[in-house]
Amino acid sequence: MIHLYTDSSPNGFKISIALEELNLTYQLHHVRIDAGEHQRPEFLALNPHGRIPVLVDDENGIILFESAAILLYLANKTQRLISSDPLQYWKTVQWLIFHASSVGPILGQRVHFEMFEQPPYESAIQRYRALTESTFLTLDQQLQQSPWIAGQDYSIADIAHFSWLHIAQIIGFDFSQFPHLSTWFQRVAERPAVQRGISIPHPATGP
Amino acid sequence: MIHLYTDSSPNGFKISIALEELNLTYQLHHVRIDAGEHQRPEFLALNPHGRIPVLVDDENGIILFESAAILLYLANKTQRLISSDPLQYWKTVQWLIFHASSVGPILGQRVHFEMFEQPPYESAIQRYRALTESTFLTLDQQLQQSPWIAGQDYSIADIAHFSWLHIAQIIGFDFSQFPHLSTWFQRVAERPAVQRGISIPHPATGP
Ligand SMILES: N[C@@H](CCC(=O)N[C@@H](CS)C(=O)NCC(=O)O)C(=O)O
Ligand SMILES: N[C@@H](CCC(=O)N[C@@H](CS)C(=O)NCC(=O)O)C(=O)O
Repeated sequence: MIHLYTDSSPNGFKISIALEELNLTYQLHHVRIDAGEHQRPEFLALNPHGRIPVLVDDENGIILFESAAILLYLANKTQRLISSDPLQYWKTVQWLIFHASSVGPILGQRVHFEMFEQPPYESAIQRYRALTESTFLTLDQQLQQSPWIAGQDYSIADIAHFSWLHIAQIIGFDFSQFPHLSTWFQRVAERPAVQRGISIPHPATGP
Repeated sequence: MIHLYTDSSPNGFKISIALEELNLTYQLHHVRIDAGEHQRPEFLALNPHGRIPVLVDDENGIILFESAAILLYLANKTQRLISSDPLQYWKTVQWLIFHASSVGPILGQRVHFEMFEQPPYESAIQRYRALTESTFLTLDQQLQQSPWIAGQDYSIADIAHFSWLHIAQIIGFDFSQFPHLSTWFQRVAERPAVQRGISIPHPATGP
């Protein structure tokens, strides 16, 4: 049995979407960040850094934190959502890590400065708008060349980017000026597994 | 032949160190960020996001950006610097991505606010000190339990963390209060391949 420790949040959705796409049976453990449950000793034993998501696979004893590591693990375990062709496999890893390293953390800083920092600090707001928009442009250019982020097939690289952009859209980080990114976003959003994934765990973030 | 496009910088050192550790023959292409060479069309054709490092492997036509993707590729190609035991393999991927997603980008923000933002903005300086130190604590706890970041063996997870901490140390981001992290750092720094890696390309950053 697979166990998913998660909350209704960008990095959590990556794994709930992937598990739904893969149709794997899993047990959901709702870690309520608002209630500080990610700082409890039981949870810190799974991820000493105190962040969701965490995946536990009873079948082999694997315990993993970091959403990109979990996505890559699930894709390798099932041989799905990533191509077995070496060129394509490594393109997918590259775009997955582009998300994990260059997109997600910077969107997180934009959330902080646009939504939480008091008093608002304009220079930091502008910094993170510019940095996130430069990643949107890179993704838009890539999606002009291929239907999915890593190429011809829907993959864990799409799931990683979608999960964060879903929240970006809810909180008003506009990317409608990027046409290829926007139509790709709609195409991912229509997938039934994605719709299930972003509603897990309930109550879901957003409208 | 392997081609490495890099500059003397934290993310670049990850790959020069790995190539030196693996004793692979490679051709070095110095991309001078100071001179804007990372924005030239020839380079943007390799990484549309305009960042070093980029690796090109002529043997199979693989072109990769994102340092963590390149490290994982080199480890898989050579079957070195990562264990083939599944539990150990995925622990290494997890700590590699912990670096790429939770440590490196946040250190990058700390560099910006401690060294470049004018006028200095104390709240952001404090934010990134606290966030980076929470990752140092997590690494310190991990290194209390095992000699290397992902367990019993030196791996790409050590190389990724070391490369950034090497620069952190040069610019005075103190981590001497974390004893296990500090002794691990010294142990990595003494490796001949690491000493070669951080001096590539010349002239190297730091003393
Ligand atoms: N790089 C990590 C980031 C994980 C992360 O920041 N998770 C957030 C929720 S989306 C969290 O647990 N936040 C709690 C906190 O920061 O204390 C990943 O991709 O898994
Ligand atoms: N997540 C990327 C980050 C790459 C990165 O930011 N590289 C820096 C040098 S360490 C760079 O090229 N900076 C040029 C710029 O930001 O314009 C990786 O790990 O490869």
